[in-house]
Amino acid sequence: MTEGSTVSGEQHVTLVVTAHAGDFVWRAGGAIALAASRGERVTIACLTFGERGESARAWREGRSLAEVKAIRRAEAEAAAAVLGAEIRFFDAGDYPLLPTPDLTDALVGVYREVRPTVVLTHALADPYNLDHPAAARMALDARVLAQAAGYPAEGEVLGAPPVFFFEPHQPEMCDFRPQVLLDITEVFDTKRAAMECLAAQQHLWEYYTELGRRRGVQLRRNAGPNLGLPANTFGEAYMRYFPQVTGRLA
Amino acid sequence: MTEGSTVSGEQHVTLVVTAHAGDFVWRAGGAIALAASRGERVTIACLTFGERGESARAWREGRSLAEVKAIRRAEAEAAAAVLGAEIRFFDAGDYPLLPTPDLTDALVGVYREVRPTVVLTHALADPYNLDHPAAARMALDARVLAQAAGYPAEGEVLGAPPVFFFEPHQPEMCDFRPQVLLDITEVFDTKRAAMECLAAQQHLWEYYTELGRRRGVQLRRNAGPNLGLPANTFGEAYMRYFPQVTGRLA
Amino acid sequence: MTEGSTVSGEQHVTLVVTAHAGDFVWRAGGAIALAASRGERVTIACLTFGERGESARAWREGRSLAEVKAIRRAEAEAAAAVLGAEIRFFDAGDYPLLPTPDLTDALVGVYREVRPTVVLTHALADPYNLDHPAAARMALDARVLAQAAGYPAEGEVLGAPPVFFFEPHQPEMCDFRPQVLLDITEVFDTKRAAMECLAAQQHLWEYYTELGRRRGVQLRRNAGPNLGLPANTFGEAYMRYFPQVTGRLA
Amino acid sequence: MTEGSTVSGEQHVTLVVTAHAGDFVWRAGGAIALAASRGERVTIACLTFGERGESARAWREGRSLAEVKAIRRAEAEAAAAVLGAEIRFFDAGDYPLLPTPDLTDALVGVYREVRPTVVLTHALADPYNLDHPAAARMALDARVLAQAAGYPAEGEVLGAPPVFFFEPHQPEMCDFRPQVLLDITEVFDTKRAAMECLAAQQHLWEYYTELGRRRGVQLRRNAGPNLGLPANTFGEAYMRYFPQVTGRLA
Amino acid sequence: MTEGSTVSGEQHVTLVVTAHAGDFVWRAGGAIALAASRGERVTIACLTFGERGESARAWREGRSLAEVKAIRRAEAEAAAAVLGAEIRFFDAGDYPLLPTPDLTDALVGVYREVRPTVVLTHALADPYNLDHPAAARMALDARVLAQAAGYPAEGEVLGAPPVFFFEPHQPEMCDFRPQVLLDITEVFDTKRAAMECLAAQQHLWEYYTELGRRRGVQLRRNAGPNLGLPANTFGEAYMRYFPQVTGRLA
Amino acid sequence: MTEGSTVSGEQHVTLVVTAHAGDFVWRAGGAIALAASRGERVTIACLTFGERGESARAWREGRSLAEVKAIRRAEAEAAAAVLGAEIRFFDAGDYPLLPTPDLTDALVGVYREVRPTVVLTHALADPYNLDHPAAARMALDARVLAQAAGYPAEGEVLGAPPVFFFEPHQPEMCDFRPQVLLDITEVFDTKRAAMECLAAQQHLWEYYTELGRRRGVQLRRNAGPNLGLPANTFGEAYMRYFPQVTGRLA
Repeated sequence: MTEGSTVSGEQHVTLVVTAHAGDFVWRAGGAIALAASRGERVTIACLTFGERGESARAWREGRSLAEVKAIRRAEAEAAAAVLGAEIRFFDAGDYPLLPTPDLTDALVGVYREVRPTVVLTHALADPYNLDHPAAARMALDARVLAQAAGYPAEGEVLGAPPVFFFEPHQPEMCDFRPQVLLDITEVFDTKRAAMECLAAQQHLWEYYTELGRRRGVQLRRNAGPNLGLPANTFGEAYMRYFPQVTGRLA
Repeated sequence: MTEGSTVSGEQHVTLVVTAHAGDFVWRAGGAIALAASRGERVTIACLTFGERGESARAWREGRSLAEVKAIRRAEAEAAAAVLGAEIRFFDAGDYPLLPTPDLTDALVGVYREVRPTVVLTHALADPYNLDHPAAARMALDARVLAQAAGYPAEGEVLGAPPVFFFEPHQPEMCDFRPQVLLDITEVFDTKRAAMECLAAQQHLWEYYTELGRRRGVQLRRNAGPNLGLPANTFGEAYMRYFPQVTGRLA
Repeated sequence: MTEGSTVSGEQHVTLVVTAHAGDFVWRAGGAIALAASRGERVTIACLTFGERGESARAWREGRSLAEVKAIRRAEAEAAAAVLGAEIRFFDAGDYPLLPTPDLTDALVGVYREVRPTVVLTHALADPYNLDHPAAARMALDARVLAQAAGYPAEGEVLGAPPVFFFEPHQPEMCDFRPQVLLDITEVFDTKRAAMECLAAQQHLWEYYTELGRRRGVQLRRNAGPNLGLPANTFGEAYMRYFPQVTGRLA
Repeated sequence: MTEGSTVSGEQHVTLVVTAHAGDFVWRAGGAIALAASRGERVTIACLTFGERGESARAWREGRSLAEVKAIRRAEAEAAAAVLGAEIRFFDAGDYPLLPTPDLTDALVGVYREVRPTVVLTHALADPYNLDHPAAARMALDARVLAQAAGYPAEGEVLGAPPVFFFEPHQPEMCDFRPQVLLDITEVFDTKRAAMECLAAQQHLWEYYTELGRRRGVQLRRNAGPNLGLPANTFGEAYMRYFPQVTGRLA
Repeated sequence: MTEGSTVSGEQHVTLVVTAHAGDFVWRAGGAIALAASRGERVTIACLTFGERGESARAWREGRSLAEVKAIRRAEAEAAAAVLGAEIRFFDAGDYPLLPTPDLTDALVGVYREVRPTVVLTHALADPYNLDHPAAARMALDARVLAQAAGYPAEGEVLGAPPVFFFEPHQPEMCDFRPQVLLDITEVFDTKRAAMECLAAQQHLWEYYTELGRRRGVQLRRNAGPNLGLPANTFGEAYMRYFPQVTGRLA
Repeated sequence: MTEGSTVSGEQHVTLVVTAHAGDFVWRAGGAIALAASRGERVTIACLTFGERGESARAWREGRSLAEVKAIRRAEAEAAAAVLGAEIRFFDAGDYPLLPTPDLTDALVGVYREVRPTVVLTHALADPYNLDHPAAARMALDARVLAQAAGYPAEGEVLGAPPVFFFEPHQPEMCDFRPQVLLDITEVFDTKRAAMECLAAQQHLWEYYTELGRRRGVQLRRNAGPNLGLPANTFGEAYMRYFPQVTGRLA
């Protein structure tokens, strides 16, 4: 089995479904950079620019709605490029991001085209944000629809890729309990560089660097007897929505 | 990285802590046989023979306590041999298996000697059985104590091996939710042969074969888009007590 | 109190609300056949034919949408007849089944007309299927609306019938914990005959026969000291949404 | 099937295991009186007199430990007599009631002798009281041990009687959610008379009368369409520890 | 810091969002009267009159829809006046109360205008009532939207006021666990007077007086060592949706 | 009401019950320093020195058990002095800290003597540490026993002080969800100074400074509309075991 392929010889592909332009950087930048560093395809489906709900600075500066969208789009494109991922914008409107059959259907199309082997999205609860659970719900619904032989969309019927929820801003308030700790040490510099593309949220650069360090400490405390991980390990935390399938307990 | 070793070059070792003589066969026989088939060491710490609580037939036949123990010991030794594992008996007395500092300390000794990289034991709740949670509790406590520099036991301080809970007889009543589905297809015949060593519980052979088949169906439904698993896949279900540590989301 | 009547002399009536054409057979066929065998009325409200999401074989055979619907309708009608139940189709469209005020209102009409004393429907969570929770939600909402004096629908205001959730395909993943084990031994042959009406899903006949057997084993282990149930007991598992009201603890 | 017998012809017997002398009156007096009114046997295993923890008035009056015990014993005997139940005292010492193998073993003896078809005890959590969960834990453990063929106690092996947890003083804080609402209207006067035997806790008479009325209101709201329960219905709430086994959904 | 102001000198303002005309009286009348008695502003956003779902008596008397609404409006206005609160009606239609973007947007307007420092609303689950969770969901969504700089509504961006869920009619069935017990003894007469404005629901006056007394008993049992609360203490129970922020543990 | 007194005129007193010598510094140092800064009494009951389980460095340096205990005692005494608290050592032996009736009884004595109005201790679950839940369990049990009129200990019967669980090292794995965010900004320098008394755990100084900063960010996001907290706010997170009792919702 070579790099970038699965046991059946197909390619590894990661699909990231996010509500706003910055989410994929703070929450899954390490996973994206890791996959890209292995030569795998990563596609980000960015449902809105976060123009109303997560662009306070731009509004305080008196920007128009179109300007805010353009700023956030440019930042997200730059960050995706740094991470090595393709990004697609749906401009569905945020705050609130309203789930619609059309938007879910568009995501079914992405699933059938991109054919992900791994899906990353938001957790299903967030008392501080309506849009995050709405995006996650549509990501999950579209994944199920894409598996149905009778669903009328382009492309072949999909298998059942595993789904990982990335970490929300206030994890304990979102019923988020780390189930998977991903070692992102080798790509952390890339993640940091992507964070720095998000000029409007500079106060979060250090916050999420520190989170990476803390998840790294936790990763080492759960890493088993033999791994010998270095002190400056960085990590990202994820939850699983479906059981892990494996040939080895580890 | 060769078969049977970890990233740091040490050996993979599985420690199974069970309350009664039969548990490791029904609930973890596949995982044991898989590890053994890879040339790895597997040690079973069997705290009691299940002489009072899980030997109804022998009692109905009028056996003495010593006879019942001897019967269950012989069955368990045969099953362990079939699976390729070493087994140690503690004869701590079942129904009830009472947690004691001495028994926990004996398990610390096993941890420090065997140096497991993976631990398998019962789930922490079981309304139908007192002994299963008691065994799990001691397995978990001993694991933590074995990690402490100041704990006075032979051997070097242990790392933090992952812990997996195997499936109880009535999973939903024990808050058991499959988090890991282990593909045991290639060793299922070995597991079945080990089950058939347990002559006193013949009614369970088919029951647990059927469970393996059902978990195999579930495994295929969660196996992602590319795996192409055969229809006669067999599985075993596990829960994790600690987060998974990994370098790849899959 | 005679067969088929309640303490106040009214008739026992069971209403089953399902998302797709096959659900009532696999999940509640025993309960339906039992009620019918007691001479009680059973009405099945089948919201969709499962034409897109649960008819993979027909699509692979190249059938049109209309053909798929006709196939599933015929199968469901045959199965309902075997079980002794009346079935009504709403053809609301599946994958996704979208909750709408109109569909909920139609269900209110059914409640007021049929006047169920027991309601059976899907559980409220199912990570593998959008339509099941959607059907359950509408069944529950319509039940509450039908109780309101001011709700503008034909028929008298309804009482508050108990609601039972039947077992999903992957129960542990749907937070399904058996709270009621129904002894369906005496009608199991009828349930099997109804299953065999669903020709397109032949692989499930044995799967659900085995599930019935396993729930039967569990039923016997929880059946109390005196019942003396036979070894070939068959069962179905249910959850309650509301507390049981009774005049005797048992 | 006649009054007071099960389907297999054996007698209905209720075993109540409580921590303190008053618990069975406030929490299960209705169930006890109902069973007794049907001519069934009810045995109360009262582990302590509640001499330290629930006899504040007697201590304020300057009574000795022996006097407090005698007072509570007399009250409990009177209340049991009013309800129609037999009561046995274990005098195991309260505040704290410490679980011991000997006390659990004594309860196994009771199970094998009395052969209950229904068991009532405390819920497993109570932040306001250590003794209640301790009593419940021993009641549950003894029940399992009494079922084991190899457990060395007098009497025949027991079946698996259902277990009901009665309502704690602050139900929401004890994770108590009513799953069974028992109609005790016809015996409420008897329960009230038993409450009035507990002279030291007069402030609770009205409190628990009011609770009975409130659970009666809830019972009527969940009683289904046809029951026509009167406005002055009284109820008691219970949780189940095991699934209900039944031949009819209702 | 004077009465009715916060640490930063702004006024304390309470916003109550309810589904039906009577809810604010039974569930939060004490909190409202307390705040009003301190000279603080209280605004009630009453989304419907409860005309279909909670006006059974009026329908039985043959009233028209317009009459029922008028009756309930008059009652609610009288009760709000007694409590000292302002009330606004949205007439959004009940049974079902359907969440819409327009209604949520109207609530955003209320938040930005009224600028609450405390928000009270329904709990998020209620198996007996669709409208209560729907109202709570909109109250929570509007609160988040009102905080977004880019949300196009009149008024300044809002801070993040704490949210309290008041007690549903069947608390245990709604996952309601008291986290805050509010002492309403000094205003209980006012709450009772407000209850008596709801002539159509006279059967609830005593029910909710009794609930107040019971929550008062619980309040005293949790009130710490020194408070010396009187025996006739009255209370109301609340849950928090967000963590408490404080400068002192107490 | 003056500083350091309750509404009934008694003094505010904080009792902290911890398993090991360092816990009170990392987890509750801010709360302790805040109370002390208000002139209130704070007593720390330190059940063990953490000599075996949390002194890895000393063991690696070849210290004897007595030496390790002396080192940890000196550190803890210094830290308590910096915070302004009294500390008492029970030397009960760690790893494992075994709950015993004698140790619980000793804590009852402390409760009756110190008469706390607030209690701080560990959370009830910790997969990484046996001793923390054991200490919490004894702290809770002793609190209940100290309230019983009949419990034979010196001193007057206690009231019911609120209990707060402080934050474990891996909060999400311990079911820890922040319910109270305490603003410790004004005493953070004191907490840091106390941390620096724990020379053996220097790697944690920055870790817990960072945690304080992160909880401060969360505190500001939940602080309501008017507080105007500074950017360098520090916080500590707590859970409540009992409902809050209050005269004002805020």
